[in-house]
Amino acid sequence: MKKRNIPSVTVNRLCIYHHCLEKIIKAEDKKEPLFISSSEISTLTGINSAQIRKDLAHFGQFGKRGIGYLAINLVKELEKILGLDKKWSAIIVGAGNLGKALARYKGFRNRGFLIKGIFDKDPLKIGNKIGNIPIYDIKEMEKFIRDKNIDIGLLVVPAEFAQEVADKMVAGGIKAILNFAPLRLSLSSEVRIHNVDLSLEFEGLTYYLSK
Amino acid sequence: MKKRNIPSVTVNRLCIYHHCLEKIIKAEDKKEPLFISSSEISTLTGINSAQIRKDLAHFGQFGKRGIGYLAINLVKELEKILGLDKKWSAIIVGAGNLGKALARYKGFRNRGFLIKGIFDKDPLKIGNKIGNIPIYDIKEMEKFIRDKNIDIGLLVVPAEFAQEVADKMVAGGIKAILNFAPLRLSLSSEVRIHNVDLSLEFEGLTYYLSK
Repeated sequence: MKKRNIPSVTVNRLCIYHHCLEKIIKAEDKKEPLFISSSEISTLTGINSAQIRKDLAHFGQFGKRGIGYLAINLVKELEKILGLDKKWSAIIVGAGNLGKALARYKGFRNRGFLIKGIFDKDPLKIGNKIGNIPIYDIKEMEKFIRDKNIDIGLLVVPAEFAQEVADKMVAGGIKAILNFAPLRLSLSSEVRIHNVDLSLEFEGLTYYLSK
Repeated sequence: MKKRNIPSVTVNRLCIYHHCLEKIIKAEDKKEPLFISSSEISTLTGINSAQIRKDLAHFGQFGKRGIGYLAINLVKELEKILGLDKKWSAIIVGAGNLGKALARYKGFRNRGFLIKGIFDKDPLKIGNKIGNIPIYDIKEMEKFIRDKNIDIGLLVVPAEFAQEVADKMVAGGIKAILNFAPLRLSLSSEVRIHNVDLSLEFEGLTYYLSK
């Protein structure tokens, strides 16, 4: 599968497959190898099984007719294609409650996302650490991004400063931004932006409550 | 559409449609009514368009052949079925950095999720407020849930206390838990649990970085 040729809608589906498989593997306690068919993935994800087979066929013929895919192999292939098998370096900008919580969040490190620094403009915060991660002056951010080859910026500043800080991240060379601020950033199309909306976490729940 | 009859995989798809439509409506600045076809939703979500038409047909015949669905109506119908048109009351348990950040998160209130109280066991925190929301003694939680008819519990305590606190939430009458603690809760199947994994927010990004 040539990476450049995958449309973003397919990337989204690959993320869904990856998430679904991880869940299944965690839930299963079996010692024997776990096989999963495209129709089982379909039931769990809501994506048509012909579509799933087509998407996964790009990775080569490692599914077996009548048996399905070896789950652990499929997860590894998906991680490779999605770039989840590497280490990525990130910074957090904004040392408020959410910035601090993200700095301490263990799930990031476990998945290869390494927080290299936190940036803030508050002189009372600069020079302190959160866990092992130092808080630097935001004025040093651009140089830090360049010098340390930072891949991803977590933008956790108030909405009114978000665009300005994002522009500086990009000037430093950041290629992807996780935006926790409640506004749409306007940036070069070269930069990938993912807007985080924590209220979406509730969505699946309320259906069952309103029955 | 009789609510009881919708399988959870369909509910997940309805959430995906809802999210996708909201994004489109926000992105469009048009004053004329916005129509969207099942094949457009398919392109954006990766879900087969026959499946989309089948799912949405449950809501009645308000899509028009050759024109599609009136986006704003479809969003409203989805909100109704998903229970997103109501107000829900919630509590946060754990007044650490993440608990505090969630208490201040404006996106919840905008979508009808009202945080009625925060609970902690730290005597230095009990009695304070975060924004307008009081921090109570965790010993008062069960009674509070019962008295105030709390729908949803946000579980933001360290992993080692999560099961114990979740059991008390359920004893108080909570029917849905958003679990931010990194462990699987074991609870009655009556209780809906959604495990939040913030590292999933990175997944779509790394594909583009690894090209």
